[in-house]
Amino acid sequence: MSQVVESARRAKEASRLVASLDDKTKAAVLNGLADCIEGAAPLIQMVNGKDVMEAQKAGLAEAKLARLRINGSVIEQTMSSLRQIAGMPDPVGQVTLERTTPIGLRVKKVRTPLGVVAMIYEARPMVTIDAFALCFKSGNACILKGGGEACESNLMLMKLIHAVLAGHGLPADACVVLAKATREEVRDLLTLDRYVDVAIPRGGEELIRFVQEHAKVPLLFHARGVCHIFVDQAADMDMAEKVCVSAKTSAPATCNAAECVLVHEGVAAAAVPRLVGAFVAAGVEVRGCARTCELDSRAIPAAGEDFGREFLGLTVALKVVPGMDEAIAHIEQFGSDHTEAIITGDERAAEWFSDHVRSSCVVVNASTRFNDGFSLGLGAEIGISTTRLHAYGPMGLEELTTQRWVVRGDGQVR
Amino acid sequence: MSQVVESARRAKEASRLVASLDDKTKAAVLNGLADCIEGAAPLIQMVNGKDVMEAQKAGLAEAKLARLRINGSVIEQTMSSLRQIAGMPDPVGQVTLERTTPIGLRVKKVRTPLGVVAMIYEARPMVTIDAFALCFKSGNACILKGGGEACESNLMLMKLIHAVLAGHGLPADACVVLAKATREEVRDLLTLDRYVDVAIPRGGEELIRFVQEHAKVPLLFHARGVCHIFVDQAADMDMAEKVCVSAKTSAPATCNAAECVLVHEGVAAAAVPRLVGAFVAAGVEVRGCARTCELDSRAIPAAGEDFGREFLGLTVALKVVPGMDEAIAHIEQFGSDHTEAIITGDERAAEWFSDHVRSSCVVVNASTRFNDGFSLGLGAEIGISTTRLHAYGPMGLEELTTQRWVVRGDGQVR
Repeated sequence: MSQVVESARRAKEASRLVASLDDKTKAAVLNGLADCIEGAAPLIQMVNGKDVMEAQKAGLAEAKLARLRINGSVIEQTMSSLRQIAGMPDPVGQVTLERTTPIGLRVKKVRTPLGVVAMIYEARPMVTIDAFALCFKSGNACILKGGGEACESNLMLMKLIHAVLAGHGLPADACVVLAKATREEVRDLLTLDRYVDVAIPRGGEELIRFVQEHAKVPLLFHARGVCHIFVDQAADMDMAEKVCVSAKTSAPATCNAAECVLVHEGVAAAAVPRLVGAFVAAGVEVRGCARTCELDSRAIPAAGEDFGREFLGLTVALKVVPGMDEAIAHIEQFGSDHTEAIITGDERAAEWFSDHVRSSCVVVNASTRFNDGFSLGLGAEIGISTTRLHAYGPMGLEELTTQRWVVRGDGQVR
Repeated sequence: MSQVVESARRAKEASRLVASLDDKTKAAVLNGLADCIEGAAPLIQMVNGKDVMEAQKAGLAEAKLARLRINGSVIEQTMSSLRQIAGMPDPVGQVTLERTTPIGLRVKKVRTPLGVVAMIYEARPMVTIDAFALCFKSGNACILKGGGEACESNLMLMKLIHAVLAGHGLPADACVVLAKATREEVRDLLTLDRYVDVAIPRGGEELIRFVQEHAKVPLLFHARGVCHIFVDQAADMDMAEKVCVSAKTSAPATCNAAECVLVHEGVAAAAVPRLVGAFVAAGVEVRGCARTCELDSRAIPAAGEDFGREFLGLTVALKVVPGMDEAIAHIEQFGSDHTEAIITGDERAAEWFSDHVRSSCVVVNASTRFNDGFSLGLGAEIGISTTRLHAYGPMGLEELTTQRWVVRGDGQVR
């Protein structure tokens, strides 16, 4: 346990320094890191190539290999994201409330960093840079544990981060990278509530379950993204078709992709064949309820577990429901509090749905895929939370801070 | 396990209904409960008398007996608190952010209840009413587990709550009271992350440790309140004396009472004898560092563990420090992130202290005891959190809600 404890203790110590940095320094570090990545691009790609080769030998699936690979466009994207984060307003020190109490205490609520953020993630190595950038800009130290298959890439990226930090006289402990940590060490890390203020796991269900099982520190995460679209009886059918197909197919492996479409019985006879046809034409397998299959034989009968399932691929569940109440009840039973959409031209239906579905994001007449930090205007995100506490939905810079109270008096006692 | 699971499941079900209540109904229930408590006062006191008698027989300490006892003034206070909460603005549905994104999505952040709040607390039975009132007003169902010694009182209060709920056609499951639950059942409850959105433990260190050890649900709490006052070299000594003595003695058993006074060496020769004298005159035992004892022989030499200790009584630790940096370092090492105060006439010292001490509440020139929901203008509080995530400091109605995203489009896809 001792080595992880020591790393975490040092991150906590460094966090006090990071918390007090001015925004100019923080922006200079992040812009410097972007330059540094630009210069080191060939080296990064070479080292990453070794990780990819090893992973290929070990038989890693193609989807995971794609995430592991750092190509020119990944590097471009990372640099542009770093520069964007560098330029965002500093959340630290923002005053979110000011009042004077009846006895003359001047009370303020002030944004302050969380302290030490531990992030546990899988294959994509550039998360190392993104996570550091968001934590650092919001005044936090971070402890980063990426996937084992990205070990060499992550160590390389760590060296760049540490070099830039050192160039500004800042300690390497502001960004602890545990590239080679074992499962036991990660488990130990998750119990260090004295040093770690929050842990953010990002990855498959197995990773999330492991973290949830062992954590004593607070967590922010989403376990699954089982997103629904309800096609109301007052839906514009062109819009419904376009949104359903796009929400399923534009990035089927993401957590905000649609997994289940619910269709109002009042329009089912026309809507179901149209939706099934559009899905099939887009290469999507439709698993339908009995009524769906009755209306369109291209739908395959759904098994019970197909509802509430995160297909993460080109499969969608489709169910006809008697009305809004049953759609909401279905979402309550099978949803994951992530994102649900309604397609409707009826303002009252839109309002009822928005008020009674309490997922982290409810979308009216647009794709579920907009539940994302960039789309909602947060600038960048470190993940999406369905934990309700602290952050519900995408987590940007503000979600990496908390608010403390600062009170000024002139001798008041109680 | 089954009975607790079933209770929690039903609370979750009821939470959907509570979340959608309008404020008129919620206020009517809380005002009705105040009336009902007024009418049932003799009955409540009779039943409570049995709990007190049993506890006396079992040899419960006098401090705990005092907390267990419901007298006329406790009833008055509860009624007035209920009516105050009833009249507060409803946090549910408040829009905290509105923007339109470049592609025309109209984005809102809306306050929404957490869902099910489980509260685990000790002797004081009226917490049952306060906790229900705050959870209900903020649109949450609650599960309440009070101390075993208050069992009959809590069951009586539960009956009143359920009667008032029933009078408004609302289910008893909106307020589940587990007065007789065993430790095993509480442990089970703390693992039900499917039904319980947050647990709030309030009580002694043993209770907190038990909850922390077993919880799989998110927690909001403070473990200890080790609050410091730093008497700067630019302090007004009259103010320093008044604030230090009051912060220690006005309610020594509370979490925001001062436990340790740090004195700047620059004024120690004058300040230490004055503070020690004032403490001793107020009946407070002073445990001092070597320098303190050298300056005033009425101070008793402090043992190492006296720093960072929550005395919860009329004892205070006193230490002379070379300056501000050492005061802050002492707080970082021994504090509990709860409340720290500085007494100073120097504006720059006040600012430096406020910026670099990151406890949930930093107070300049006033008592630490103001870190409290009423004093800071939250109206009422369900507890104080030092967890940083979600709530840092006193937790009122807003802290019992989260914010979800509601997005309106006109067919946008990604």
